[in-house]
Amino acid sequence: MTLAPSSRVQLTEDGKLRHFLTTEHLPRSLLEDILDTAASFVDVGGRSIKKVPLLRGKTVVNLFFESSTRTRSTFELAAQRLSADVLNLDIAKSATSKGETLLDTLRNLEAMAADMFVVRHQDSGAPFFIANEVTPNVAVINAGDGRHAHPTQAMLDMYTIRHYKGGFEGLKVAIVGDILHSRVARSQVHALNTLGAEEVRLIGPKTLLPVDAEALGATVFTDMAHGLKDVDVVIMLRLQKERMDSALLPSEGEFFRLYGLNNEKLQYAKEDAIVMHPGPINRGVEIASEVADGPRSVILNQVTFGIAVRMAVMSMAISGQDSAPAGGAHGS
Amino acid sequence: MTLAPSSRVQLTEDGKLRHFLTTEHLPRSLLEDILDTAASFVDVGGRSIKKVPLLRGKTVVNLFFESSTRTRSTFELAAQRLSADVLNLDIAKSATSKGETLLDTLRNLEAMAADMFVVRHQDSGAPFFIANEVTPNVAVINAGDGRHAHPTQAMLDMYTIRHYKGGFEGLKVAIVGDILHSRVARSQVHALNTLGAEEVRLIGPKTLLPVDAEALGATVFTDMAHGLKDVDVVIMLRLQKERMDSALLPSEGEFFRLYGLNNEKLQYAKEDAIVMHPGPINRGVEIASEVADGPRSVILNQVTFGIAVRMAVMSMAISGQDSAPAGGAHGS
Amino acid sequence: MTLAPSSRVQLTEDGKLRHFLTTEHLPRSLLEDILDTAASFVDVGGRSIKKVPLLRGKTVVNLFFESSTRTRSTFELAAQRLSADVLNLDIAKSATSKGETLLDTLRNLEAMAADMFVVRHQDSGAPFFIANEVTPNVAVINAGDGRHAHPTQAMLDMYTIRHYKGGFEGLKVAIVGDILHSRVARSQVHALNTLGAEEVRLIGPKTLLPVDAEALGATVFTDMAHGLKDVDVVIMLRLQKERMDSALLPSEGEFFRLYGLNNEKLQYAKEDAIVMHPGPINRGVEIASEVADGPRSVILNQVTFGIAVRMAVMSMAISGQDSAPAGGAHGS
Repeated sequence: MTLAPSSRVQLTEDGKLRHFLTTEHLPRSLLEDILDTAASFVDVGGRSIKKVPLLRGKTVVNLFFESSTRTRSTFELAAQRLSADVLNLDIAKSATSKGETLLDTLRNLEAMAADMFVVRHQDSGAPFFIANEVTPNVAVINAGDGRHAHPTQAMLDMYTIRHYKGGFEGLKVAIVGDILHSRVARSQVHALNTLGAEEVRLIGPKTLLPVDAEALGATVFTDMAHGLKDVDVVIMLRLQKERMDSALLPSEGEFFRLYGLNNEKLQYAKEDAIVMHPGPINRGVEIASEVADGPRSVILNQVTFGIAVRMAVMSMAISGQDSAPAGGAHGS
Repeated sequence: MTLAPSSRVQLTEDGKLRHFLTTEHLPRSLLEDILDTAASFVDVGGRSIKKVPLLRGKTVVNLFFESSTRTRSTFELAAQRLSADVLNLDIAKSATSKGETLLDTLRNLEAMAADMFVVRHQDSGAPFFIANEVTPNVAVINAGDGRHAHPTQAMLDMYTIRHYKGGFEGLKVAIVGDILHSRVARSQVHALNTLGAEEVRLIGPKTLLPVDAEALGATVFTDMAHGLKDVDVVIMLRLQKERMDSALLPSEGEFFRLYGLNNEKLQYAKEDAIVMHPGPINRGVEIASEVADGPRSVILNQVTFGIAVRMAVMSMAISGQDSAPAGGAHGS
Repeated sequence: MTLAPSSRVQLTEDGKLRHFLTTEHLPRSLLEDILDTAASFVDVGGRSIKKVPLLRGKTVVNLFFESSTRTRSTFELAAQRLSADVLNLDIAKSATSKGETLLDTLRNLEAMAADMFVVRHQDSGAPFFIANEVTPNVAVINAGDGRHAHPTQAMLDMYTIRHYKGGFEGLKVAIVGDILHSRVARSQVHALNTLGAEEVRLIGPKTLLPVDAEALGATVFTDMAHGLKDVDVVIMLRLQKERMDSALLPSEGEFFRLYGLNNEKLQYAKEDAIVMHPGPINRGVEIASEVADGPRSVILNQVTFGIAVRMAVMSMAISGQDSAPAGGAHGS
């Protein structure tokens, strides 16, 4: 089995998930495994006792170099429902770790017998660096790194699409907004292509579209009328307000007029198109309330599926670590 | 069964607790149920293994829009002893949720399959708003809203009174201090009247007494000698230091001279009167150490009973939610 | 059995651990008990399910008057692996407790049926004060107080030394750096002397050596060549950067030149000497990377043993409390 560079870190020698860092270069069968495993966890959220003992006695460390209450909460809930013990480390706010190198922080947590690091970092690539450095029996999950990747978000989006559309065959998917700075968009494009979507479209103002869109396997559009034409799925991205000031973007009002999703623009899409958003939504900026709260919005279902997808990835990575021969696929 | 407006939200159609937002308009039998259920939990705190499995696999979210380490801790301990999973969200400090509407925050937490929101909010009525909006299978507990209500505090006070006085029949209870701004006092007055106390007195300077005291079912006094005369229970309120500056209050020294409870003033009350305080106490401001630490003080017992009362309310509300037909009493 | 003053608080009448505040004045057999108990917990960290039910249903309160994410995390993990419920109170950051006395805070937590306080405080002696005041069934563990003591750190160091050297008989141990301000060093000296080390040496600039070194049972050295000569163990202390400005210390570069441990200076020690450090390390300030990451460094092993030692101390103190007659050895 020959693996692309990033999958070499992510998979054991026999192709099981050991870290989850990016959706890129992973085989279709593995992405489908994640979706199938998540399906079994969706039920857990509906049970009276929302808990399975899969990670009992395991220590999950939420290692957040960039604060994010929402993302941290979803991983914390997923870990609790897998019966893991959770340690929240908000490195961004911690004074103690200052002056200590990242590697020393990692080595210390490993020495405390942590089993998993859920890593959020402002720098692209940080979770890769960490995954390459950790001891063989620690799994690393990327909870968002710089502009690079947010693979659990992308996989919950894939779960949502498969749930509502039955599969990816023949699907046209549009991703709308600030594509250039979006780690979510990059992870979505990779996953959609691997899973066999027919067409992935990126829609936004020229200044917010990536130059390598075609290499990514996507088509770019600068207007909604053409971009949304006959799509099955519309994924709106959150507009980071801090970009506004940077002259890359027109005003909020202008952006909404051109790219904000309202019922009028939604008519370009197929009649049964679903509308998605990674949250938290800016009402009246990238999406109108009539759409966010309308019958085609599946935004809250994404959140529900998100817990299940995170449970799936966490349990698969722990199980991949357990099955790997100590030191086996490590360090390449 | 005809219900007053606020009980309609709080109770299921067959009269079980589904949210706990205020002590107002609740039937006496329900308040007594809470006290009886709490009695069974008081023992748990004394056991070697302080844990019952009643809320195992349930997710309790401490949703604190106003920070309060102490109140949050009591709910966290109560939830842990019921074996629930707890997620602490300090919305006051969270940057992520900024820009997101309250309703969107709620919808997201519901989508994560939360079972209970323990809500603290600076605005009166916020927990009602939330209870009216949540999906049918989520219970809301008010942990203090603006100047309006603090019902779990009031019920632990009722528990304490019943424990030491055997019941409410014929009891005279005085509440002393800044009544006007006290959510605790309002909740106490409602509970005392419903449970059949003979007389509820409110004592404080005119500027800190509510104008609707008689409508509340209480008598007002502006001096301690008359107000404390022959009472069975004295409840001192915490003086919010921030009010001092607002010209509503005399100086700390002056307040203590007139309304601070010392042994001398305590002599006006019955010989076996008990002294209560919701904590944290300001020694030498509203209460003298000789009283706070004296033989008639039951202030620390209130804290112990508080865990049990919170366990009672939490388990009753979850059980009320489970028994309610989905969507049944909701949204009216 | 006649006990030294500090052991009277720490031990039950039949010599069991009830609080762990300092390594001073404790009998050798008790320190050895801690090490033996820890040995049984080292295995737990290597298991697939890293959890034992010893503290199930017990409430451990991390009462940190001085913030320390790292130390708090080690106690939190130790408590989780003993199956305790944990409440983290960062008093340094909590606004609520302001205005409330320390004793009132304690009394409230006792009333909530806490079983153990893990106390970190900037003032020397604070955990003693607390241990003298708590009710008989609450155990107090000192997680570092002022310049006074850090006994769990010292005991994990003892565990590490015994693990690598087989015992303390005939051992020469050097402690290097800012001895004067180090609570770790004081606790180490007491433990080493009690456990029978042959010689304890303190090495540092004159301004950072204590005047009572000989009374402590240690020899002082101001240069590394003499101080490290033929030692079996080198313990480097962390240099608190904030001392730099205080004129007690030369520049960082100057300090490293004189006292920083590099391979060259390490040659003074025995060939099989081990190198220890309580962490977090300042690379290039008190220790060179070639040593910190070299074959004689056991710094990360200390961290691993640290969880086990904390589990040992916590479980022994809880068990000592349970065995003590209520009120027995208390309050003297």
